[in-house]
Amino acid sequence: MKTYRKQDFPVWQIRRYLEPGPIVLVSSAWKGAGNIMTMGWHTVMEFEPSRVGCFITSANHSYEMIRRSRQCVINVPTAEMAKTVAGIGNCTGAEVDKFERFGLTPEEAEQVQAPLIAECPVSLECRVADTSLLRKYSFFVLEVVKAHAAPRPKYPKTLHYTGDGVFMVAGGHINLRRQFRPEML
Amino acid sequence: MKTYRKQDFPVWQIRRYLEPGPIVLVSSAWKGAGNIMTMGWHTVMEFEPSRVGCFITSANHSYEMIRRSRQCVINVPTAEMAKTVAGIGNCTGAEVDKFERFGLTPEEAEQVQAPLIAECPVSLECRVADTSLLRKYSFFVLEVVKAHAAPRPKYPKTLHYTGDGVFMVAGGHINLRRQFRPEML
Repeated sequence: MKTYRKQDFPVWQIRRYLEPGPIVLVSSAWKGAGNIMTMGWHTVMEFEPSRVGCFITSANHSYEMIRRSRQCVINVPTAEMAKTVAGIGNCTGAEVDKFERFGLTPEEAEQVQAPLIAECPVSLECRVADTSLLRKYSFFVLEVVKAHAAPRPKYPKTLHYTGDGVFMVAGGHINLRRQFRPEML
Repeated sequence: MKTYRKQDFPVWQIRRYLEPGPIVLVSSAWKGAGNIMTMGWHTVMEFEPSRVGCFITSANHSYEMIRRSRQCVINVPTAEMAKTVAGIGNCTGAEVDKFERFGLTPEEAEQVQAPLIAECPVSLECRVADTSLLRKYSFFVLEVVKAHAAPRPKYPKTLHYTGDGVFMVAGGHINLRRQFRPEML
């Protein structure tokens, strides 16, 4: 699979990649072991600090790794990786090394222990900022502390999960900038 | 603009429409006045109860209407409505009646006072379930109490906001159902 050479990207601009709602691959690490999970239930929550909220149930092998390490990386896969994404979501890190099984390349992050995934054009290093919503909502509040993005394509062809094994693939783009008030951009 | 004849839709299945991450139109009502706002920062949080979390700042005219009425409707617009969506996001309900200005048709909801938008193929009646995260995160936890969806298209051509006035338009779909374990569907 293709890998991307990523560059630093401003953390307060990550809405470009997350607000459209792609399925993402969350990588984590704890005590020498690494794992990857798929995640579709997430939202941007603030520009600065760059905050993301996400629902992860304790049924996931990654849950305890993220909770204990208080870190993870959100990687945005593209449509070319669709089968890999489905595969990752349908096996457990308790049984398999997902990097190995799916031929993915871990890359060292700068501020967290969890690895970036080289095959994804966007990777966001995150620290867990708030665990107080875990018990009631299984909801992690994360802060993106460092962002990496391939300069091209500006808008990666992302996957968007609809349930039932069906993914929507990102289509074209419409620029309505001229309709926006400057303070709304 | 085209209107849709919507039917009852199971509230626990609304991930089909929200998990892909579309920009949505949130309608609200309070003391005889109605309003509409655009919203891009939302996530599904649970199937049953059907829970949705969303970020709405108090800078929005809708904020107090939703907080006080403890109700709103999440409407999913299509690509044909792109200019309307941008227009709604760039004016305030404090100054204009958005239903009137944008020629949208309010329809009576069943369980809440806020109106459905007839021009949207999907409308989700919501009650505010938890306001305890407003002060720290401007985050509403909603429960979808009644869902309405046009039977066709199964997957509406939604808009996905990337910032900077640019919207991604939903493209085609990939069915990878055969790769899924039954319990993951």
